[in-house]
Amino acid sequence: MTDPPDTTTGRRPGGRTARVRAQVLDAVRAELAEGGHEGLTMEGVATRSGVHRATVYRRWRDVGGLLADLIDAAGEIDWQPPDTGSLRGDLTALNREIQESLVVRPSFAIALMAASFHSEQAARAQTRLWADRYAQCEILVERASARGELPAHHTDARRLLIAATAPLYHQLVLLRAEPNPRLPEQAAATAVLAATAGAFSVRREESG
Amino acid sequence: MTDPPDTTTGRRPGGRTARVRAQVLDAVRAELAEGGHEGLTMEGVATRSGVHRATVYRRWRDVGGLLADLIDAAGEIDWQPPDTGSLRGDLTALNREIQESLVVRPSFAIALMAASFHSEQAARAQTRLWADRYAQCEILVERASARGELPAHHTDARRLLIAATAPLYHQLVLLRAEPNPRLPEQAAATAVLAATAGAFSVRREESG
Repeated sequence: MTDPPDTTTGRRPGGRTARVRAQVLDAVRAELAEGGHEGLTMEGVATRSGVHRATVYRRWRDVGGLLADLIDAAGEIDWQPPDTGSLRGDLTALNREIQESLVVRPSFAIALMAASFHSEQAARAQTRLWADRYAQCEILVERASARGELPAHHTDARRLLIAATAPLYHQLVLLRAEPNPRLPEQAAATAVLAATAGAFSVRREESG
Repeated sequence: MTDPPDTTTGRRPGGRTARVRAQVLDAVRAELAEGGHEGLTMEGVATRSGVHRATVYRRWRDVGGLLADLIDAAGEIDWQPPDTGSLRGDLTALNREIQESLVVRPSFAIALMAASFHSEQAARAQTRLWADRYAQCEILVERASARGELPAHHTDARRLLIAATAPLYHQLVLLRAEPNPRLPEQAAATAVLAATAGAFSVRREESG
């Protein structure tokens, strides 16, 4: 990872481009881990990655560009939502993943959220990633409906998912509470109770 | 506000101290409104406030100190939680206040959250303010219990309040969604349904 890019392999531009990107994004992760998003500089990333400064500036332009690409790379991972056989189990597993990503130190998730407050480009990338993840998770609600776990009315999957996950972000990111190992399941169970009571039910003509 | 502090009135230190603080915090608000937390500097605040630079540095030390004091000043406002006669009404009113504070431009609430990611002092001040506000709001749940709106088991007021309010912060701050005028009431209604279904009920021996 610290080797300079081998310019003699320039004949395969796709492969080399991908390799340079991997080197640079690895360096961004390492710099974030060491100094948080505030310690992140183009110079530091170029030096650590071993990629020519000019290349880093040309391709990523600024720190916002690096962060946005790191977020995009996270979106390219073949992530699959949990499938435990019940809505409560699925939401609990999802919340455990979220809690883990927020309490691990260094937390890239928190570094990216912090960065998105002052890089418009990173903020847009993050909003896209979140929209994708919530869209992917809608299947949890569809499966629960198919299993008969939810009221007959159509359930607004997005609202249910946000109700289930928002308390984790609120407690751990904004309120900076100590991690509570019961929180993932509590928040999941609350959302399921609310859903069962019809909190997210919409008449067909209202939805869409 | 742009007058320099009158050093001839130095005989009433409490009054003068309070006046200097008001001048400086007004300047912090104005600077935040113009340039966000990233444009905030000690020099800019000193110049705008008309307070001597040396005084600003001695008393607030750095930008984190200014932000922390601004947050503390917010906590000194005589804020009262809503009292509409029903839990759903109270939580809806509370959520409307929160939504308003997050969608107004410039939003001090968002500037302070952004700042708390990189000033430990501001972060601690904000955590204190939030803890105070949630503690003040526990009375909404006590009143609802007294009115018989909640299950007989003791209700965990803090968890109920976080469930009611977290979706607003999640949608507006982290997901940067367009403000939805129905969101305050939806999130309140969801929390009430969950509470009625026992989502926040604790046996006495578990609580406290």
